[in-house]
Amino acid sequence: MPDPAVHVRDATRDDVPRIVALYRTDELTRKHGDDSRADIEPGYYATFEAIENDSRNRLLVAEVAGEIAGSFQLTYVPDMQPDGRDVAIIENVIVDASARGSGVGSAMMRWAVEEARVHGCSQIKLTSNTKRTDAHRFYERLGFETTHVGFKILLTS
Amino acid sequence: MPDPAVHVRDATRDDVPRIVALYRTDELTRKHGDDSRADIEPGYYATFEAIENDSRNRLLVAEVAGEIAGSFQLTYVPDMQPDGRDVAIIENVIVDASARGSGVGSAMMRWAVEEARVHGCSQIKLTSNTKRTDAHRFYERLGFETTHVGFKILLTS
Repeated sequence: MPDPAVHVRDATRDDVPRIVALYRTDELTRKHGDDSRADIEPGYYATFEAIENDSRNRLLVAEVAGEIAGSFQLTYVPDMQPDGRDVAIIENVIVDASARGSGVGSAMMRWAVEEARVHGCSQIKLTSNTKRTDAHRFYERLGFETTHVGFKILLTS
Repeated sequence: MPDPAVHVRDATRDDVPRIVALYRTDELTRKHGDDSRADIEPGYYATFEAIENDSRNRLLVAEVAGEIAGSFQLTYVPDMQPDGRDVAIIENVIVDASARGSGVGSAMMRWAVEEARVHGCSQIKLTSNTKRTDAHRFYERLGFETTHVGFKILLTS
């Protein structure tokens, strides 16, 4: 049953500093040491606008008692396999360290699965760094099955 | 060095039956037994149009001597991590069984990596079914690193 204390909504431009600060709390993806507002590069706002203006992308935040405790991104990809329905992809799942274990992450993922179902997607998928073994158990408890191996090449700018 | 005999281009509407027929040759994703043109559901064309009309999605085909020998999809996802640049995702990689080992798959993937680089992406990624161990070695030879575990939930229509 979804936790009624967790409210998932689309992010607004004013949420960008908080979302970036959340990303920076994550050891595996952290690129910056300073999460102060002054350090928010214009590039983050440009990317936020790209998401906001694209009907196939949504940046979501989860609020608990009016404070943002987590975030994730949902992307709908048109896909000819297996049957022409969109595929939903979850990216950039982050929960504030102080809120972990409180059900915020579960509430976000249940929300995402239900949203993908309502959207008419054939499947919802995500990848999780091989080092995040706790996260893997978390996704399995939510009904996700390990089906794929994720590969990547980092590109220099 | 890219194989000059392999020509990668955007798919056209006329290519849809051939692409769907290619998908159906794949044991892991095959859903249909009949690859005749009459069996091409209108839904595939609707999905093709969704891809064609979306600036963040491209359906590509690889031609050898004027015949389509492979296909894949490229999706650009706006991503606030790590630095606001798009992430490129490769999906639905398929090579005609008779063309495997001839360099078509390598040419397609090298084309995709170069295209993502020119587009300004921070990374290019894909997932491959855990059962496709040959494909995993293929991606590793191309410079892809295994970094993630892929999870999914299938949704009923």
